[in-house]
Amino acid sequence: MGTVDPWVSAPARIADPDEGISVDELRLAARNHGMPLEALRYDVTPPGLHYLLTHYDIPALDPGAWRLTVSGAVARPLSLGLEDLRVRPRVTQRVTLECAGNGRARLQPRPVSQPWLDEAVGTAEWTGTPLAGVLAEAGVAATAVDVAFAGADRGFERGVEQDYRRGLSLGEAMRDDILLVDEMDGRPLPPQHGAPVRLIVPGWYGMAHVKWLVEVTVLEAEFGGYQNVTSYRLKQDADEPGEPVTRIMPKALVQPPGVPDFQSRVRVVDSGVVELTGRAWSGWAPVDTVEISVDDGVSWRPAELEPPADPYAWRLWRYVWDAAPGRYELRARARDTSGNEQPVGQAWNRQGMANNHAQRVTVVVR
Amino acid sequence: MGTVDPWVSAPARIADPDEGISVDELRLAARNHGMPLEALRYDVTPPGLHYLLTHYDIPALDPGAWRLTVSGAVARPLSLGLEDLRVRPRVTQRVTLECAGNGRARLQPRPVSQPWLDEAVGTAEWTGTPLAGVLAEAGVAATAVDVAFAGADRGFERGVEQDYRRGLSLGEAMRDDILLVDEMDGRPLPPQHGAPVRLIVPGWYGMAHVKWLVEVTVLEAEFGGYQNVTSYRLKQDADEPGEPVTRIMPKALVQPPGVPDFQSRVRVVDSGVVELTGRAWSGWAPVDTVEISVDDGVSWRPAELEPPADPYAWRLWRYVWDAAPGRYELRARARDTSGNEQPVGQAWNRQGMANNHAQRVTVVVR
Repeated sequence: MGTVDPWVSAPARIADPDEGISVDELRLAARNHGMPLEALRYDVTPPGLHYLLTHYDIPALDPGAWRLTVSGAVARPLSLGLEDLRVRPRVTQRVTLECAGNGRARLQPRPVSQPWLDEAVGTAEWTGTPLAGVLAEAGVAATAVDVAFAGADRGFERGVEQDYRRGLSLGEAMRDDILLVDEMDGRPLPPQHGAPVRLIVPGWYGMAHVKWLVEVTVLEAEFGGYQNVTSYRLKQDADEPGEPVTRIMPKALVQPPGVPDFQSRVRVVDSGVVELTGRAWSGWAPVDTVEISVDDGVSWRPAELEPPADPYAWRLWRYVWDAAPGRYELRARARDTSGNEQPVGQAWNRQGMANNHAQRVTVVVR
Repeated sequence: MGTVDPWVSAPARIADPDEGISVDELRLAARNHGMPLEALRYDVTPPGLHYLLTHYDIPALDPGAWRLTVSGAVARPLSLGLEDLRVRPRVTQRVTLECAGNGRARLQPRPVSQPWLDEAVGTAEWTGTPLAGVLAEAGVAATAVDVAFAGADRGFERGVEQDYRRGLSLGEAMRDDILLVDEMDGRPLPPQHGAPVRLIVPGWYGMAHVKWLVEVTVLEAEFGGYQNVTSYRLKQDADEPGEPVTRIMPKALVQPPGVPDFQSRVRVVDSGVVELTGRAWSGWAPVDTVEISVDDGVSWRPAELEPPADPYAWRLWRYVWDAAPGRYELRARARDTSGNEQPVGQAWNRQGMANNHAQRVTVVVR
């Protein structure tokens, strides 16, 4: 690992109470992007509207020259090309992905990083082959503990030079729905979503779905890499180890009704019966309840849920609102069958991870 | 037009000297997005990486039900469906589009609007039929002056409720390279780029390329709509009429070398010979000169230009840099054959339009 001046790669920090969004944060917002919330109308997010977060640069990999190595605590190390993967059993899964930092810029005080508001989410149909079959072919040692995944993207982060690497426990990695995918929505992965091959870990926040995958390493000890041990932790203080960020907390979003103002994004709606719709998801268990408030969380009423699609895809909800003239703050909250309930207020942590406090949509009914 | 409270749709304003980016601006940055600058490596920007600006919401149009009306000062008003357009003569053009607000957030003081830095650009291959043929079929009156184009997107902007509408002079509209396109990069337009049909006006900033096109109206007077007369003007004071924003000013961008820091985006490069590359374009005339500075604009040396592709597509440039350890500010500037030269410093205007002052890429060579 190289060393680098702190002005190139500074420690994480929390914004001052009245500090606006910095140019550093804006640079990230201008290159990464969320899903415009009107795209909640689509069961599967159209290409280019799915949220995108790239830690470093999007690498340029030649699919013909690309190899995936499987090594470490295995009986038979593998080196697979794209065609080797494509002749294996193929599975397509519809999966909702959300960035672990979604909602960060709404926290007070604000952790300085990619400044998401509500929109770092998307749903795609991912096609590839189960990781478990590849690991079985390599022959995982009985002493194995974790599996590490390395992408081809490289850069600095909070002072540490690194390739992007994440670890999963062996038990998680052997789930039959973890995929090595080379197609998104029936087409080859686009460069920004990990071409030629990425990992898909249904139910987990985006950091687990390693893009531009080039190495799978079976480890006989816990993976100690930066993205598991330092980043993607729930902590209050910089010095505590914190808890790992794992699965997606339940969340519901409202598709903003009516028409927007260009700058404020406040919505203007004609009075009368308005069908509100949106989506809800959880990485822990199926969502079974969505509730809607039109008075900024004072009172709540249940929405109707459409039948679920895939277990890890969002569910459509509907709510009929008889809208009288006035100003409203619309909110939605979801609960899943494992008992996780979305909070209305924030649960602050210093990296702004796994936030699922309820969205607020400001509406003027005329 | 409706009326609306100023807190829904406020007048344009300039940020205070020390004011950080506001949540209003961040909301726009999170839903719109630039082209990550490493994508300057591609001749044609991969789908999903092309810059995107949506004034209101992306509308949901049914391609089967969609109609384009051609009316006003014409002998034979038309109502065309998608298949009617697709059986007409088809043309494919590679065109670089840039948002007129690109660079706005780098201006001092900063006009408050979509806060672009350098990245609101992209190049695509657009396929469709020439507008001139459709206008000829409708039979434009001898008294015609302007042609107005209306999109299906609706909202408020600086207090004014509106569908998105832009006008072009009849002379411009009758150019043989103005297209009604239904394909981008060989596939049907994606929703966010104007599905099912948009206008392409090669050489002009993005505001002219009306998306979700539903009406073409031939006018016997100058078009007086908001987006021509109030927005997209070059002015110093709010009260002056200003000059219209039209064609794209020449610009060169550097593909950032080396690897980035996640947060600061400062680049780290190993010392030695580094081939810098990038792209340059102008909507006025072909770019014939690109110059590079590695000392923040103190000295300049010429880059090599690759042969041009289409007349309205960017040109690739190359520059060999023998990089010694230290800190550098890389800059590039372009000149076109009509004599337009890109300035190094800013030319401020209060809407932050048509800025082409030179990009700055901070690099540490180790």
